[in-house]
Amino acid sequence: MENIIKTEAEIFSAASVVGGKEADGPLGELFDLCDPSDRFGMKTWEKAESEMQRLSLNTALAKSGVHPKKVGALFAGDLLNQCVGSAYGLQSFGIPYIGLYGACSTCAESLLLASAWVSYRMCNVAAAVTSSHYCSAERQYRTPLEYGAQRAPTAQWTVTGAGAFLVRKAERAEPTSEGRAVVTRCLIGRVQDSGIADAANMGAAMAPAALDTLCRFFEETATDPENYDLIVTGDLGHEGGDILCSLMKAEGYDIDPVYNDCGRMIYDRERQDVHGGGSGCGCSAVVLSADILPRIKKGELSRVLFMATGAMMSPDSLKQGENVLAVAHLLEIEHREGGEA
Amino acid sequence: MENIIKTEAEIFSAASVVGGKEADGPLGELFDLCDPSDRFGMKTWEKAESEMQRLSLNTALAKSGVHPKKVGALFAGDLLNQCVGSAYGLQSFGIPYIGLYGACSTCAESLLLASAWVSYRMCNVAAAVTSSHYCSAERQYRTPLEYGAQRAPTAQWTVTGAGAFLVRKAERAEPTSEGRAVVTRCLIGRVQDSGIADAANMGAAMAPAALDTLCRFFEETATDPENYDLIVTGDLGHEGGDILCSLMKAEGYDIDPVYNDCGRMIYDRERQDVHGGGSGCGCSAVVLSADILPRIKKGELSRVLFMATGAMMSPDSLKQGENVLAVAHLLEIEHREGGEA
Repeated sequence: MENIIKTEAEIFSAASVVGGKEADGPLGELFDLCDPSDRFGMKTWEKAESEMQRLSLNTALAKSGVHPKKVGALFAGDLLNQCVGSAYGLQSFGIPYIGLYGACSTCAESLLLASAWVSYRMCNVAAAVTSSHYCSAERQYRTPLEYGAQRAPTAQWTVTGAGAFLVRKAERAEPTSEGRAVVTRCLIGRVQDSGIADAANMGAAMAPAALDTLCRFFEETATDPENYDLIVTGDLGHEGGDILCSLMKAEGYDIDPVYNDCGRMIYDRERQDVHGGGSGCGCSAVVLSADILPRIKKGELSRVLFMATGAMMSPDSLKQGENVLAVAHLLEIEHREGGEA
Repeated sequence: MENIIKTEAEIFSAASVVGGKEADGPLGELFDLCDPSDRFGMKTWEKAESEMQRLSLNTALAKSGVHPKKVGALFAGDLLNQCVGSAYGLQSFGIPYIGLYGACSTCAESLLLASAWVSYRMCNVAAAVTSSHYCSAERQYRTPLEYGAQRAPTAQWTVTGAGAFLVRKAERAEPTSEGRAVVTRCLIGRVQDSGIADAANMGAAMAPAALDTLCRFFEETATDPENYDLIVTGDLGHEGGDILCSLMKAEGYDIDPVYNDCGRMIYDRERQDVHGGGSGCGCSAVVLSADILPRIKKGELSRVLFMATGAMMSPDSLKQGENVLAVAHLLEIEHREGGEA
């Protein structure tokens, strides 16, 4: 159990901000804020991404009535070079800031650190924020939209979205009608090299990282898929999700009955032309915030494994002949009744 | 004291890897490994930077006889887009990996997280690694070396170097002849916008972030500069260091007698043509590893404030008219005798 981190962290507020395509998807009604133009009043896509981050944290704070001064640490990151989406978007809050780079694993990475931070009382309230934007990601990682490049069947669609979470130590609360979502155990991922160099097939590159983390978690905690209502990955998409299920079967774990992926959930595959599904830091962040957490709070889901995967490469590293490295961080999130510790 | 993080983390092993210019500087004799060609056997500067990271962690592990499997968490980051220096350089160790982006504050950021992680027993041994490389940084942030661009007088010289640190909870040890270096208190920085948009004057952009963190630390801990033998910043350089000392005086703190900066210490200003001094994540990492920590262990320095500053911007954000944001994270590091708790 050396590597399992025990936590008692209640995610007591969350918010999601999305673009037009996400609002038009199956979860569209659930998100807090949306700008169908994807611009959020800004002149550049990068500034729009920062603005989404600002709006998401602002909304999470407003929902819970927490003043920024009461937040002791802010863990944040995004996909833009030098993580400027987070730095510029969150600067105005004046909250002590830990910048992260975990590619699309950042939602889990930031929540893991925030959960540990409050569980061990390094501060009372911590925040986790992350984002991605389709247009800034295309320009930086692939080609500007104006090129109209064709996409491979396995290519995923970067979600335009930002998610913000506030956590505090889960204490015995007054009995209330509303249930809570508590992060109870976490596992940090290890960087994996699965030999894949195709940047248009991220799901395949990331699935082995998810496999490594999930198997280690089951072994170290003596649990198995039957202990969970939902095992959900961040953005393996259709391709990577199938690969993960197959790989898990080879290891003796059948996760199919409880498995899903945020990149599959956020878009309608037939209607929205997304090929391999959704991706990006914002994908798992907005699906967790808008869909999964509310279902945990209500008790529809009682025990969930949330695992976001990230591809740890750059356009330059691929041009220099490197493979797509990947990492997957895992959180166990449980339903608690209002009055439970 | 809400924001001060109390830790009991011994930095029990450290290693430094540098290039030719650093080996030729005033601290040259102190570094563990050096390649005067700056290439470390690799065909690209980016791969050379990864190799420096690998060598630095390998050396820190070898010095202490710790197996990678005994390291529960690795906190790492660098300046390259998507932090690929760390991901590719450290993948082979198989250690649970938390990727960071704090620009040149990453040395302090990673050590802060690692120190908290072991102090609160989330794992027994944690590692912190960071790097920068002059040639990869020039290509990415400014112009490829072949252009032979002129440098502004305030411009700093990115250090080619990587530093690795291993930390464990400081327990009462057997009396030994060797002293120890223990991280006792930490403070996370807040992102500051001081209105400076000149990327060739990072010191000026980062000094206000150092001011904010240092003043908050003195206020929250009821200490002042006289309580410390050394207050050392990461890479404010000649320009930024002078600005910080002036700003601190305006706040009623005279830090001049105990102040220094890793970017001033690493190069000979007259002989080595570095204009504003050294910079980069690697600057504070190798100076802390090779010079400051050994002096703390020997008892030459009994109480040090180590504060690395980072400029949280990208070339694109500056082109879009944004200012250079900055953050500064602080660690208090104390000398302990071998047998002390």
